[in-house]
Formats: sequence, C-alpha cells, structure tokens
Amino acid sequence: MLPPTVAADARIAHIGIAVRDLEEAARFYREILGLTPHPVAVADGAQILEFDLGGSGVELLAAADPETPIGKYLAKRGPGIHHVCFRVRDLEAALAQCRAAGYQLIDEVPRPGGHGRRVAFVHPKATAGILIELTG
Amino acid sequence: MLPPTVAADARIAHIGIAVRDLEEAARFYREILGLTPHPVAVADGAQILEFDLGGSGVELLAAADPETPIGKYLAKRGPGIHHVCFRVRDLEAALAQCRAAGYQLIDEVPRPGGHGRRVAFVHPKATAGILIELTG
Repeated sequence: MLPPTVAADARIAHIGIAVRDLEEAARFYREILGLTPHPVAVADGAQILEFDLGGSGVELLAAADPETPIGKYLAKRGPGIHHVCFRVRDLEAALAQCRAAGYQLIDEVPRPGGHGRRVAFVHPKATAGILIELTG
Repeated sequence: MLPPTVAADARIAHIGIAVRDLEEAARFYREILGLTPHPVAVADGAQILEFDLGGSGVELLAAADPETPIGKYLAKRGPGIHHVCFRVRDLEAALAQCRAAGYQLIDEVPRPGGHGRRVAFVHPKATAGILIELTG
C-alpha cells in the first residue's frame, strides 16, 4: 500500500474546456460570472483564454488548426471539458507515485506550463478515460 | 450592458465526471491525490462518489441504469467530464441575469442539490456546448 499523504492537499488548479470560438464561449463567464479573462495565450497549438476563480481557473481552449490536440478533440467529440489540472504539493513525488502504482504517464518528466509552473499529463488509460494534468 | 458584479466571486464548486465504474475511477484520487471520498450518494439516477479538495470537489458519477442522464451520456460520449458547477454569491440574481441575457435554463427555478444547497443547470446551447450548473 502506498502512503496516502503525498498530495493530500491537492486542489483543482484549472479545468480546460475545448470550444470552437473563444469569444462566443467567453460570454457566459463575462456576463453571468462577472469574470475578466487574461489576454489570449498560445500553447500546444491552442489559443487559451483564462479566467481566475479564487485559486482555480477556467481555460477556454480553441484550436489554432485542426491538427492540434484541441482541434482533433473538437473534431472527434465536439465542445466539452477537455481536462482537469490538479495542483499537488510535490509534483515529482506524485509522478513517482504514479509510476509505482503502474499509471501510464504522457509526460515522464515535468515540462513548462503556464505561469512558470511545471506540468505533467497522466494518460487517460490510467484514469478511467479522463485526461488529468498535474502541476506543482 | 448588464452589471458585471452579480457573481464576481464565482468559484468552481465541483466538477462532475461520468465514469463506468466508481471504484476503478476512484483509484487515482485515492492513491495519487491522497483523497478519501464521502460515502456513495444517489441523485438523478446517478451513483455519486464525491471527493473534497479545499472548497471545490470532484464528483465521480456512474449510471444506475442506461436510461439515466449519465447512462445516456456514457453511451453517447464515453467517460468524460460531464459538467462543471460554479458557486455564485446570489443564485437568484445569477439566474435573473441569465434570463435577461437570453440564456436558456434547464432549471428555471432552483432545485435541491447536495449538501442542502440549491442548484440550477444552464442549457448547454447557451454556454458553447458545456453543461454548467450554478449553486448558491
């Protein structure tokens, strides 16, 4: 049995939502939730419009072109909540625990994410079909 | 222009994840995130396994039978993040703002949700295809 305390202060860092049109999708967050997004960023071929919600965030993700990961997701499934990112206290320890428990990782080694944080994706095969990102 | 301050302290209350098997899906949250779920609850024909993450939550949702909303979702799309619930300061005001802005609501009037809270779903047609729940 693995120690259960590696990441017991885990939090939802953000959810990533695949959308066809950033500004159309942003309307609800602006008009109903009263949020103001950061300027559009670009990463992994996605245009990202990010809203802060008190320590967590919502990232609206549009495809810069159809061959990007978000473009392929939209073509296959349509708009939807693409992934969830959990913030853990010790990213290296969480990844080591993933390996020890036999979870397949997309990123064996953390790579740079937004806001100067390091991130790693766990393969959906390991997490009941859900794409999960971990960040430190 | 609507006043932008109705729900400016919006937070992610929880995300709801449709899964085929609660215990299989729960492994990652137990083993890697170190979380302990609440006892299984039942609502809207879904079996719900809920984890707390510092003010937000993850709800794993399994279908009690294929004719329930989660059962139909799983049959059509497979496992995935089914909805996001935002907590707002004033649920009635947020719903009034939805109506004023022409957003279609699934629940015109709030109904009882978990933990004694009232909830209302916004129709995905109004939110770029994403199922959004609001709670007070």
